[in-house]
Amino acid sequence: MTATPNRRVVLAERPKGVPEPRHFRVEEVDPVPPRDGEVLVRVSHWSVDPAMRGWVNDVPNYLPPVAIGAVMRSFAVGEVVESRHPGFASGEVVTGMLGWQRMATVPGEAIDRKVAESDLPPSLALGILGLNGVTAYLGLTTVADPQPGETVVVSTAAGAVGSAVGQIARALGCRAVGIAGGPEKVALCREAYGYDAALDYKAGGLDAGLAAACPDGVDVYFDNTCGPISDRVMGHLAQNARVVICGTAAITDWDPLPQGPRVHRQLLVKRARMQGFLAFDHKDRYAETIDRLAGWVRDGTLTWREHVLDGAEAARDAIGMLYRGENTGKLIVAVD
Amino acid sequence: MTATPNRRVVLAERPKGVPEPRHFRVEEVDPVPPRDGEVLVRVSHWSVDPAMRGWVNDVPNYLPPVAIGAVMRSFAVGEVVESRHPGFASGEVVTGMLGWQRMATVPGEAIDRKVAESDLPPSLALGILGLNGVTAYLGLTTVADPQPGETVVVSTAAGAVGSAVGQIARALGCRAVGIAGGPEKVALCREAYGYDAALDYKAGGLDAGLAAACPDGVDVYFDNTCGPISDRVMGHLAQNARVVICGTAAITDWDPLPQGPRVHRQLLVKRARMQGFLAFDHKDRYAETIDRLAGWVRDGTLTWREHVLDGAEAARDAIGMLYRGENTGKLIVAVD
Repeated sequence: MTATPNRRVVLAERPKGVPEPRHFRVEEVDPVPPRDGEVLVRVSHWSVDPAMRGWVNDVPNYLPPVAIGAVMRSFAVGEVVESRHPGFASGEVVTGMLGWQRMATVPGEAIDRKVAESDLPPSLALGILGLNGVTAYLGLTTVADPQPGETVVVSTAAGAVGSAVGQIARALGCRAVGIAGGPEKVALCREAYGYDAALDYKAGGLDAGLAAACPDGVDVYFDNTCGPISDRVMGHLAQNARVVICGTAAITDWDPLPQGPRVHRQLLVKRARMQGFLAFDHKDRYAETIDRLAGWVRDGTLTWREHVLDGAEAARDAIGMLYRGENTGKLIVAVD
Repeated sequence: MTATPNRRVVLAERPKGVPEPRHFRVEEVDPVPPRDGEVLVRVSHWSVDPAMRGWVNDVPNYLPPVAIGAVMRSFAVGEVVESRHPGFASGEVVTGMLGWQRMATVPGEAIDRKVAESDLPPSLALGILGLNGVTAYLGLTTVADPQPGETVVVSTAAGAVGSAVGQIARALGCRAVGIAGGPEKVALCREAYGYDAALDYKAGGLDAGLAAACPDGVDVYFDNTCGPISDRVMGHLAQNARVVICGTAAITDWDPLPQGPRVHRQLLVKRARMQGFLAFDHKDRYAETIDRLAGWVRDGTLTWREHVLDGAEAARDAIGMLYRGENTGKLIVAVD
């Protein structure tokens, strides 16, 4: 057993909408010795994901809300330091729902996978080789099934999921058009992520930009925003378009439901489809997907950016940073 | 050639929203002698369909708008009186896009099919054995693919499409829950169309009614309204629900887009799907579908109601009647 204290971030108060630093508290407690079936993991990196906003709100979601006083739910990666589970051994790098804590004692079932890509940085297991990459690949392929030559539009195009979607769409033979906020992110889209076109929604003229970038309409729209940006894209759908509802970053509060333009007639006229996607439904396909993504990382088809925050105190504002669009690339916390 | 004048209804002015009587003009002209490839049809019944609202508005649609001064576009049924097309002969009953006119001279391609069910009334070719039945069957089966035991909710449940959807859902082994306006239509749903439950949206309490009628949530929602009724149903979706967007009867004007509650989070949380459906995309399946529906009509599985208006003058307000919900059953015009 290790004597390292378990420094952790717990939910102090329940926020309405996007959590602020005051909603979290950093504390140190003794690590919990693992019982049979459990492992103790020394966590090196915490993930910061848009979905975490929903996990702390008390509104219907796919998981129950994080309890007040409980460790913030989060993906994380680290090394097993003690195992009382037959499937894991000390020294193995693992990733899963370990939470925002340094010393995570969890049942073996909380581990999603062993990180086998020892030639690649372990933090990639939280991004391009983790939920972000898996969400991008499976959301795009299972819901939208894009065909070569089709036009794929991506919102939050420079983000951790969006940048992967754009690159995967191109790897599958599609034209990729990214929408991002500000010249810096748009430049990233064009130069780092290889989008065929990138549009700055903050600069105005998004309708004209979409019309120019998508002369045959939008076959696939991979949406992480569901706000005013999506309202514009919906006006450019091609016949039989598919809209992947993957995230709702533009809306900070769903209670009561916010108003927006009704999409029904656009869907009817274009015989288009909108569908919600959650990677958790497809766990049986994670392994093959990560193998494919890792191959693309190694051969240079896929690139990524990481935005690394330093330690637990910085984590308290991390979800806010994400919703304010202040990160460039996958936001992670290096555990202190 | 016949000497019968061609009494017809033409579009006099372009309406914004639902057309009123003043937007149409009744006139009599000489019938046009058919040229090679054309047939002359003595039309007996005109169809009145919700889609006709969209056909006269100058907004994006799946067909160009009806021109000012042109015969109102419409499905109709009648008997060939002169054929210069090798596929048709005098005396055959045919249905297709013949328009609101008594003597229709049309190319053979405007004929959708010969009405072979000589044991059944020809007007059924405009309803349960026409676009309504085909829309109900193919919309339900191709978009939603309902499984036995699933709960199918139908808006405009006593209408020409809705009543067919409810009965087909039951024939496929589903529970059918209808939503209609007023006690008369609700009684029709329960007694004539065999819904397992029927809810009166005008009576209030629709949320509570849906919760009681759909204890395991709504697996399939076949929507002809896309207004406040749909907003309520969206709050009751089951996991992996499918929403068929078939019509938009509750919205009279789509320019500019009306506001409503954003559906994105409901789709995401339930991994649900909304998809536009237009029967015209599935013409290759009309024949087999009508055969199946005719079998269900003959064995009593499917019943229907017709609401028959008398002649061209009455047709001028027919679309308005439909949108005001004044018809019970399929609205048709007996041609005078």
